[in-house]
Amino acid sequence: MCRWIAYRGEPIALEHYVTAPKHSLIEQSQRALEAVASVNGDGFGLGWYAGHDEPGLYREVRPAWSDENLRHLCRHIRSHLFFAHVRASTGTPTTRPNCHPFAHGRWMFMHNGQIGDWSLIRRKVEALIPDAFYKSRVGTTDSEAVFLAILGAGAEDDPVAATCDTLARLTEMVRQSGTREPLRFTAALSDGQNLYAFRYVHNGSANTLYYREGGANVVMASEPLDTERDYWKPVPPAHAIVARAGQPVELRPFPQDARLAAE
Amino acid sequence: MCRWIAYRGEPIALEHYVTAPKHSLIEQSQRALEAVASVNGDGFGLGWYAGHDEPGLYREVRPAWSDENLRHLCRHIRSHLFFAHVRASTGTPTTRPNCHPFAHGRWMFMHNGQIGDWSLIRRKVEALIPDAFYKSRVGTTDSEAVFLAILGAGAEDDPVAATCDTLARLTEMVRQSGTREPLRFTAALSDGQNLYAFRYVHNGSANTLYYREGGANVVMASEPLDTERDYWKPVPPAHAIVARAGQPVELRPFPQDARLAAE
Amino acid sequence: MCRWIAYRGEPIALEHYVTAPKHSLIEQSQRALEAVASVNGDGFGLGWYAGHDEPGLYREVRPAWSDENLRHLCRHIRSHLFFAHVRASTGTPTTRPNCHPFAHGRWMFMHNGQIGDWSLIRRKVEALIPDAFYKSRVGTTDSEAVFLAILGAGAEDDPVAATCDTLARLTEMVRQSGTREPLRFTAALSDGQNLYAFRYVHNGSANTLYYREGGANVVMASEPLDTERDYWKPVPPAHAIVARAGQPVELRPFPQDARLAAE
Amino acid sequence: MCRWIAYRGEPIALEHYVTAPKHSLIEQSQRALEAVASVNGDGFGLGWYAGHDEPGLYREVRPAWSDENLRHLCRHIRSHLFFAHVRASTGTPTTRPNCHPFAHGRWMFMHNGQIGDWSLIRRKVEALIPDAFYKSRVGTTDSEAVFLAILGAGAEDDPVAATCDTLARLTEMVRQSGTREPLRFTAALSDGQNLYAFRYVHNGSANTLYYREGGANVVMASEPLDTERDYWKPVPPAHAIVARAGQPVELRPFPQDARLAAE
Repeated sequence: MCRWIAYRGEPIALEHYVTAPKHSLIEQSQRALEAVASVNGDGFGLGWYAGHDEPGLYREVRPAWSDENLRHLCRHIRSHLFFAHVRASTGTPTTRPNCHPFAHGRWMFMHNGQIGDWSLIRRKVEALIPDAFYKSRVGTTDSEAVFLAILGAGAEDDPVAATCDTLARLTEMVRQSGTREPLRFTAALSDGQNLYAFRYVHNGSANTLYYREGGANVVMASEPLDTERDYWKPVPPAHAIVARAGQPVELRPFPQDARLAAE
Repeated sequence: MCRWIAYRGEPIALEHYVTAPKHSLIEQSQRALEAVASVNGDGFGLGWYAGHDEPGLYREVRPAWSDENLRHLCRHIRSHLFFAHVRASTGTPTTRPNCHPFAHGRWMFMHNGQIGDWSLIRRKVEALIPDAFYKSRVGTTDSEAVFLAILGAGAEDDPVAATCDTLARLTEMVRQSGTREPLRFTAALSDGQNLYAFRYVHNGSANTLYYREGGANVVMASEPLDTERDYWKPVPPAHAIVARAGQPVELRPFPQDARLAAE
Repeated sequence: MCRWIAYRGEPIALEHYVTAPKHSLIEQSQRALEAVASVNGDGFGLGWYAGHDEPGLYREVRPAWSDENLRHLCRHIRSHLFFAHVRASTGTPTTRPNCHPFAHGRWMFMHNGQIGDWSLIRRKVEALIPDAFYKSRVGTTDSEAVFLAILGAGAEDDPVAATCDTLARLTEMVRQSGTREPLRFTAALSDGQNLYAFRYVHNGSANTLYYREGGANVVMASEPLDTERDYWKPVPPAHAIVARAGQPVELRPFPQDARLAAE
Repeated sequence: MCRWIAYRGEPIALEHYVTAPKHSLIEQSQRALEAVASVNGDGFGLGWYAGHDEPGLYREVRPAWSDENLRHLCRHIRSHLFFAHVRASTGTPTTRPNCHPFAHGRWMFMHNGQIGDWSLIRRKVEALIPDAFYKSRVGTTDSEAVFLAILGAGAEDDPVAATCDTLARLTEMVRQSGTREPLRFTAALSDGQNLYAFRYVHNGSANTLYYREGGANVVMASEPLDTERDYWKPVPPAHAIVARAGQPVELRPFPQDARLAAE
């Protein structure tokens, strides 16, 4: 049960969304409103693209609210596409490699949710990761494993299809494991140019996800960052939201097989 | 606005009060009930006496709730007199030297509260610290400065008088500084044999303090640690509570000058 | 290339070996003499048995030499059997779960060395871990994986045989992976009563290991802790050293199959 | 005994000097060549100017060599004027507020050295800090206190004079304290446009300081960052080096009173 934001648009300082708004991500780290866990103090992370193909990362195990470095970086780093994430652990340890976002080459990923009873299906999910990507597994979270599985499923060619395929496989694994624990997947993915987000659930209710457009800019967030709630549109469950550079935001229902698997 | 517990009695494992009870200190670090700040995630500390005159300390900047070391230490360390503290900063940075408890020789101290507008009187309070103790100031909190001032005021001879005298001086400093910020002082002090605690305020309401006796054992806490609230007695404001080894707990009103200063 | 010590004998304070001697483990963390990496600043750990079947652990990512908590704990914790380890990473991140020692139930383990080219055989080694133990894999090191593999190979019944069998398998994996990177394994294992250590290598020279006996007490260390080098006996390569409670220390050559595999 | 670099010139990525060169600052954190302490593992910091009057800061207590965040930031942050520092503590704790560089408004400062026996003159040095700057003292190092004293001595009007005046006062304080401990001051100061560095000692030998010019760019460092030692010129003791924007680098001997005080 984490909170995150993702931005794509004109280059801006990260503070614009991470630290400055009334209900900024930092504020949400102490007092989230639409989550089971109101405190997200088990580490945090920033990821941003600027001048290189691969993203920059800053991840720390301390709570976001007391990190002086975070305020400095959000004020001094500008980017056209960035992620920020505050973590409430579902069981894995609070270490930097377990903090989101995760990066591999030019791809970046972050996740809010859980993958069923992780102890039951961890090995099967890790087996989805091709050898070429397994050496990048430096942490132990379900989220990182799913990211590498998505890359292995062909994100380079079609990130939405690779994600939906992986979710269909995960759903089947959770179902077969016999648990009643949910598969909750509210996540963002990017290659540095385009921004993709997903809202999906199997067993239970989907974690919240909103987006707000303004001209060529779009920001996506677990919870609205300000009190102008009319501007924030919810993403329906079992939908992807695609924000390609230079194109209007597009909502896409998941393909039939993923939806079926989720029924 | 922190939370703390202090114990004196038969040697027990620290987990008995720090991690095990329903509303344990660790639980209070995430969901304090009787405090303005419900999250106490700006570091924590343990201090305990066992086999040496001076106490052992374990202090960390991470939140108490996710610290694996803390659970191990609370399970494996036994003591007849120990302190535990979870911190919600009132402005000073989250560093280990700013975490409670503080120790000097055989003395140990921890504090919940604030000393007026610290930026206005910091230099005056630091000037109360004798040179011999000033080299032990390794952090920047108001709490550590007050501890060293109390030692300088003669804690070795009469810890209650030294504390009350220091509070009278602090009250006068806060008053003269012109602030409306409160002086809140709910604190514990020990020499390894006897346990002293204090509840005091100038400008506003006093932070809560309770104690529970059982035979020769006494535990003091910012909030009751369990649901048997009838066993937990509140300490009245402007009172010290003295738990000497081998003697029943004694409540003492502050001397007139301290009370007058607080009016 | 880490440094470690292990002690079994009369209960003593950990400081006796960890922080006090002239060439203590803390000193070795800054200036190791018999290692390729003279600085061991990538985290450290303590593990000790006292009053419970399972050991207590204290692990931190900061260097041992500047950790105030470590000095306090070494002074205040007494144990009849304890481990201490300073880490120089061979590639995996500096996180607490990647710091030694590792514990599972009443078993504790620490390691100095490397397991060939870890990226080539990681999956195969992880496959050695039975499901029942895999959920305890909270880090990503080769060392933790090997520990859980040893437990899975029957350490409960015969810890020396389980370790030698696992080393034979690892040797075969490293050989088949085609790497010239060594398998270096200088490690300690305990169930809380008995202490076992191992010195083994495939491809290259074995990391150093010494022991010193005094009455019923034995201390094992990567490097002698003091200048009385005559009292420190080296453990030969391909040997286990067994220090059972109440029995003299015993050196055992590895069984033929492990030695053959290592030729 | 720390190591640092400072750069002013055309905007470049920080990695150009901090992480990439053969004898980069990160390399020096493990294997400094011209220092008493060859390991600088007691925290580190970056400070850079980019788009704001005040600098950005990133400071951490972990060693620089294992910090993944540091590598990301050095790769993704570009600046026309930046500082980087690896710390070997002379006694104060390893906390973020004790790590260099220090910032106040648009001013930034870092230091390699020590101020005599700090415990003897700490109060006198802190008394040099005007009230307006004292509230910015968030750590406990000698270095931070000297920085705030320099600001109080008029750095805004004449940073070289303010530094030399402060050094004259410090020299007198050290002399009167009766210690034989040296006052070593090899430091850098900037307002975001101009870069000033100083090499000074009282009692003993001055810490090393070099600079290398190339066109409009200048880099200053405790030790040469590469093997082209001919390009690195040493700064003589009791000299300031002034690198104003758009002007050639200028070496200035300290004024007579400072030199006299140092004799």
